[in-house]
Amino acid sequence: MDGSITRRGQPCWYKKENIGLIAINDSFFLESSLYALLRRYVKGRPYYMDVSELFQETTLQTVVGQCLDLTTAPPQGKVDFSQFTMERYSAIVKWKTAFYSFYLPVALAMHMAGISDEESHDDAKKILLQMGHFFQVQDDYLDCYGDPEVIGKIGTDIEDNKCGWLVVTALELASPEQREQLQACYGRPGEDDVKKVKAIYKELDLESVYKRYEESSYQELIKLINKSNSKVPHEVFTRFANKIYKRQK
Amino acid sequence: MDGSITRRGQPCWYKKENIGLIAINDSFFLESSLYALLRRYVKGRPYYMDVSELFQETTLQTVVGQCLDLTTAPPQGKVDFSQFTMERYSAIVKWKTAFYSFYLPVALAMHMAGISDEESHDDAKKILLQMGHFFQVQDDYLDCYGDPEVIGKIGTDIEDNKCGWLVVTALELASPEQREQLQACYGRPGEDDVKKVKAIYKELDLESVYKRYEESSYQELIKLINKSNSKVPHEVFTRFANKIYKRQK
Repeated sequence: MDGSITRRGQPCWYKKENIGLIAINDSFFLESSLYALLRRYVKGRPYYMDVSELFQETTLQTVVGQCLDLTTAPPQGKVDFSQFTMERYSAIVKWKTAFYSFYLPVALAMHMAGISDEESHDDAKKILLQMGHFFQVQDDYLDCYGDPEVIGKIGTDIEDNKCGWLVVTALELASPEQREQLQACYGRPGEDDVKKVKAIYKELDLESVYKRYEESSYQELIKLINKSNSKVPHEVFTRFANKIYKRQK
Repeated sequence: MDGSITRRGQPCWYKKENIGLIAINDSFFLESSLYALLRRYVKGRPYYMDVSELFQETTLQTVVGQCLDLTTAPPQGKVDFSQFTMERYSAIVKWKTAFYSFYLPVALAMHMAGISDEESHDDAKKILLQMGHFFQVQDDYLDCYGDPEVIGKIGTDIEDNKCGWLVVTALELASPEQREQLQACYGRPGEDDVKKVKAIYKELDLESVYKRYEESSYQELIKLINKSNSKVPHEVFTRFANKIYKRQK
């Protein structure tokens, strides 16, 4: 729905021969099949209802996030930096990515392990949303500064006019002149324009800003974990965190 | 997803200004909101789980029906009568329309009334799917033979290459010559082509075929209702049937 041509290095499903718009129906097929699988394999277990509702809620959250993302940076629209605020960025990450990628899998395991009380879930959610936020910031950082050999793709967030952490941070730090230059070069396909954007990132020393953010985010996360009253052992969260921080890809 | 321009006489949502493909996300929004409403207003009632599962199942059934329909008569495809069989027609109607339009609303009411046993639901399903099938046949018939003043629209099933009851029946009754003529004229926008298709329908006296089908379908339905062991009072079904049969629009 954002007009993408590829997804994780493969052609998008709708771009395959003889597929096209029936891909929309196929996406509903996949979603409905999830609940058919739950009815077949999970129905009768004490956590069936919780797990089923969790998937429903997470789907709605992700739909909200996708809506926020599409309306913040319309795929065919012009660069509109007035919407590229850190507040909006954080909201998109939380709703579009963090709930389904970080809270959902852990929450499912919690329900299956018999941990369904509200406090355990609230604490886990706080920790995992923070982790998800950091993960996305890191992803945005690596899109520009990561080694393509290591991350397995060549980043195109600048060309694609993405509302990513780097540009949002740059806009917070930029002088009026730098902002104007960004305005002129961001979201354009030309190599030179991309180079100019990267030059401004360098002037603003975003690499150091990122490193500081990474360190403080990690410290804050460890604090959150340590004060958690969740019935989930702290080690579950710390091991997860150590998989995410300081990764190269 | 079938490229339609209007829906029930109004522009399709995606055709409105500034909407476009975000309409796909909006459709997931609507679907997810249904379950949010159930969580808010039905959770805690004894029929919550049954109702929630029923919506899930019905969604999957409708998705299957939409898939069957789109692959039988591809929106941008050529006329391919080899797939226009009565068996395929009946399957499309059952999955795409009858479950959600006829079984779903009655089944919801049954669960809310405390009727959730399998036999009651199996019997109701049999009756309501038969009613749904008749309703669609009638709808297809009225698209061509109904009074536009009464049905509120000008039928375009012939131009639109629809796999409807009339063309499927015509193909069952047609001589090789008539089949060839249909092949040449069906699914084309020209007024003359539509007239030729209607002339063949007249040669085959589809109006009488329809009237006989309507009568026998009604008799069969009453038989199904009378032998039903469903805990739903027979009157619920007979009153529903009398709303559907012999309608003019």
